[in-house]
Amino acid sequence: FSCSKQVATSQLFRLWAEPRLNYFSSTGSSMMRQHSIALLRAALQHPCISHTCSVSVPGRFLSTQAGREEYHAKWQRIAWSLAAVTGVSLGAGCLSAGAESSNREAVFTKGDVSKHQTPEQRVWVTYKDGVYDITDFVEMHPGGSSFIMMAAGGAVDPFWQMYQQHLKDEVRTLLQPYRIGRLADYKGPEKKDPAEDPWKDEPSRHPALMPRSNNPCNAETPGSIVAANLITSNDIFYVRNHLPVPPEPEDPAKWQLSIGGEEARSVSLTLEDLKTKFKKTTISATVECAGNRRNEMKAVKPVRGLDWDTGAIGNANWGGVKLRDVLLHAGVDPDVCDSMDGPKHVHFLGADSDPLTGDVYAASIPIELAMASNKDVLLAYEMNGEPLSRDHGAPLRVVVPGVVGARSVKWVTQIITSREESDSHWQQHDYKSFSPSVDWDTVDWSSAPAIQEAPVTSAITEPSANTQVEQGTTTIPVRGYAWSGGGRDVVRVDVSADGGATWQETQLHKVPGQKPGRAWAWTLWEAEVTLPTPPANSKGPHQVCLICKATDASYNTQPDSVAGVWNLRGVVNNAWHRVGISVGH
Amino acid sequence: FSCSKQVATSQLFRLWAEPRLNYFSSTGSSMMRQHSIALLRAALQHPCISHTCSVSVPGRFLSTQAGREEYHAKWQRIAWSLAAVTGVSLGAGCLSAGAESSNREAVFTKGDVSKHQTPEQRVWVTYKDGVYDITDFVEMHPGGSSFIMMAAGGAVDPFWQMYQQHLKDEVRTLLQPYRIGRLADYKGPEKKDPAEDPWKDEPSRHPALMPRSNNPCNAETPGSIVAANLITSNDIFYVRNHLPVPPEPEDPAKWQLSIGGEEARSVSLTLEDLKTKFKKTTISATVECAGNRRNEMKAVKPVRGLDWDTGAIGNANWGGVKLRDVLLHAGVDPDVCDSMDGPKHVHFLGADSDPLTGDVYAASIPIELAMASNKDVLLAYEMNGEPLSRDHGAPLRVVVPGVVGARSVKWVTQIITSREESDSHWQQHDYKSFSPSVDWDTVDWSSAPAIQEAPVTSAITEPSANTQVEQGTTTIPVRGYAWSGGGRDVVRVDVSADGGATWQETQLHKVPGQKPGRAWAWTLWEAEVTLPTPPANSKGPHQVCLICKATDASYNTQPDSVAGVWNLRGVVNNAWHRVGISVGH
Repeated sequence: FSCSKQVATSQLFRLWAEPRLNYFSSTGSSMMRQHSIALLRAALQHPCISHTCSVSVPGRFLSTQAGREEYHAKWQRIAWSLAAVTGVSLGAGCLSAGAESSNREAVFTKGDVSKHQTPEQRVWVTYKDGVYDITDFVEMHPGGSSFIMMAAGGAVDPFWQMYQQHLKDEVRTLLQPYRIGRLADYKGPEKKDPAEDPWKDEPSRHPALMPRSNNPCNAETPGSIVAANLITSNDIFYVRNHLPVPPEPEDPAKWQLSIGGEEARSVSLTLEDLKTKFKKTTISATVECAGNRRNEMKAVKPVRGLDWDTGAIGNANWGGVKLRDVLLHAGVDPDVCDSMDGPKHVHFLGADSDPLTGDVYAASIPIELAMASNKDVLLAYEMNGEPLSRDHGAPLRVVVPGVVGARSVKWVTQIITSREESDSHWQQHDYKSFSPSVDWDTVDWSSAPAIQEAPVTSAITEPSANTQVEQGTTTIPVRGYAWSGGGRDVVRVDVSADGGATWQETQLHKVPGQKPGRAWAWTLWEAEVTLPTPPANSKGPHQVCLICKATDASYNTQPDSVAGVWNLRGVVNNAWHRVGISVGH
Repeated sequence: FSCSKQVATSQLFRLWAEPRLNYFSSTGSSMMRQHSIALLRAALQHPCISHTCSVSVPGRFLSTQAGREEYHAKWQRIAWSLAAVTGVSLGAGCLSAGAESSNREAVFTKGDVSKHQTPEQRVWVTYKDGVYDITDFVEMHPGGSSFIMMAAGGAVDPFWQMYQQHLKDEVRTLLQPYRIGRLADYKGPEKKDPAEDPWKDEPSRHPALMPRSNNPCNAETPGSIVAANLITSNDIFYVRNHLPVPPEPEDPAKWQLSIGGEEARSVSLTLEDLKTKFKKTTISATVECAGNRRNEMKAVKPVRGLDWDTGAIGNANWGGVKLRDVLLHAGVDPDVCDSMDGPKHVHFLGADSDPLTGDVYAASIPIELAMASNKDVLLAYEMNGEPLSRDHGAPLRVVVPGVVGARSVKWVTQIITSREESDSHWQQHDYKSFSPSVDWDTVDWSSAPAIQEAPVTSAITEPSANTQVEQGTTTIPVRGYAWSGGGRDVVRVDVSADGGATWQETQLHKVPGQKPGRAWAWTLWEAEVTLPTPPANSKGPHQVCLICKATDASYNTQPDSVAGVWNLRGVVNNAWHRVGISVGH
């Protein structure tokens, strides 16, 4: 097997191959990945790839021979097809001359399109009957250039069916400027085999949840009820899924959690083991999506991501075992954090997998957090006294208190200690924030750390935006939530009804029993707020802007403007929350 | 002994006595205080005081019989004089009729003034030849009402000599509206015995330090050099003293640190013990006064406190022993933080004492912080490789990394574990922040927690304000510092030259070797900043406002406006830092 002759230049090949390798290196078990990349590199016999990843194959975690072979076979197939496509695309010349003109628009065949798979060839894709040259868009793709490059030379339609957040006008509008022609003989969408539909087994959801995307399911708690209670009911707790919900274990008794990695024994634990061999701990902890309140960022300048309002947050009593105890059980040295060359991160791998690649959702946290006896990182099997529901990670999920939701991996099945941070897409190319002046064409994902602890935030949940109150109303009740990461308690929430000229303190409601420095649960707050006197000559309704801001135990407080914390991914928006109401209608 | 007959009503007595008792309860060792308050209460035989304090006298910490007797005697004197004054003042009728009119101003004798010591009698004081009714000002006194009540019925002059921050026009102006007359037979200030001058032994200071008050010495590093180096030289490190610098130990070999308190053995350690019996640790840590950048708050609305610019901050390599190790040596349970009823705080008492009362500077930190192996709280005897200088706490000080300077007690001689937080003035009635709408007449000091961890901050140190640069200059170098509390590393500093419309990232400079989550040292930063294009028809110089803001590892960032974080005490100002310069002159 050799494809090296077909690769015209190493530079050209690297342009094509690297995004794909980066994609491979950002998904799947890191052990499997390294193993498979070594295979892939061997298959391609090409030295230019070597700097993209390390080659060590600590096979310790490949716990069964069958597992090893299955992964081996899968990645070998990918390596072969990659090599084959390389040969095809590089052997086909540069720009297609086969375009025909019709309706003042060029017409291309699928064969024409397939010749455009690299930046050198220009990157073409089709969507329905349209042909698009997206070369200049590739690096700006919110999901990462490597993902979009999977569609190079072909149709994006199946990917969009998979990642249905694309199926909206906003995305179609974004694509429009890149249109260069239409596809000859377009026959409409291919008929899908219902049995192949990766979304066919999604659980049903409470109708009160407000969907932000359907497949994967992303839905938030309505603002009007999100802060109604210190504990959020399971059924209306926001759902943030990145992939299809995995099927329930066929035989729950056989379900296993694997623990292993650097300086750890390989251990498998059943749910029964977790429940009987370790001390049960219950903590009240808030989980918030890093993208909560993204819609306010969109009002400043477009960002990419789900259009969350204030409801991608909730608080629950999580029951489970401490991650620290499980890691100690797996032989991790209690003083591992003092070691200069020990593992520095703990990876969590979910059972939710990408229907196209088989790669699973993954993230990692610093080992200091995982091992700290006072950080309360949990492997939770209960949510508010009930077994986890499918949407919330059944049978086991991670809950990392004080940290953005992306690290609280649901459906966790593997835990791996490692010197390296997770190289998953969600750790390396998502859930990071940048300076407001960094855009998709200038972003260097490696320049910012993965978000872990969340900043202090708050939101007004009552009244809702555009509420109309009677003329002559002098005070109104205002309520909401406040929360800060790292266990830093909220010490004060101020409300203003005059644009921040004056502030009124609010009454705070706390989950009882939180320990000092371990305030994992949010604070609810309320105040009867005095409205400003309307102008003397005012006849019609006048507008009042309500603002809230919280201060936490480190005396960090929220920034005034969304513009100052705007970032291309629309995450960690913790600016003063503003709600406009109308008085006298 | 009985004074109960002279006390007309319990209500009247309480009005008079409570501020004094609160003052007593906010100074000195808590053990001594409780012991003495019990004495005091017994002496006065008055039940109305009982709700202000508890009576338990855990005498464990009274390590010597001589010490017990000395304290006992001191507080007994205070109790007697308090009782005597009560009798005098309450026996003397209400408002003086002895005022004479001269120069259209009433004239009073010292005897007249002495009859006004309670809110019921109206509170009068004299300053030089003026007589002032300060009843309405008492609760607004920045140092606390209990301090100013010590001068009730007499002259404030000796107190102002002691607390020389009063000796400025601003304070005299504040006093003026309360003037009600002049003092008969005023002979000018009393001659002081130089041997009695508590400030006579102050160390000399480097002339580069910029004084903000002389006695006590408060002086900051000039902005132009504060961020010149990752390590601040000892001689130009800002000095923040609350009281006279204590004399050096006469025999350094006999100097002792006492450790004790609840669930701890009473232990005394010499400096030699600390150096030889415990592992030496050196950490690079930034210490910042909570009042740093207070002058910007003054520009929004008056605040009270030293007029710090950006230089009440510095970074040094501190050498010493871990507080945790010393507490373990004193028998504190390593799992003390898990105990529901164990001690919750660690108190530090300095050797710097109030010349009038003998009370020492004191503060406390949560025991979780003191005992955490990864929080690096130090008892430091070295600063940048040299023994501590007198101004910086010789021979031993506390360094609480990531926490405002007020808790890093200098000249520490006693460490006490306790279920209660320190009730020192500086813990309970200072170094707290409130909502911008809380003023001196509405503040409830108990409503806010004592500041511990500092919020994220940054400042531009170059160029300085009002710098003039040549016409046609398109870029200028901008430099500064950034820091956050709690060991949260600074991940980004943005600079804007157009009021925040666009931002430029800066290059960060770090102290090497900081551990994850333990970034105690500041970050220095710099950028070559592009200046906005001047208006086309611009002839004269135009103004440019440079802004910086930092983001830390929890993705907390600085608030935009000083107004939003304004507080009556002018602390923890971490708003965007703005420096105006002029281009083309």
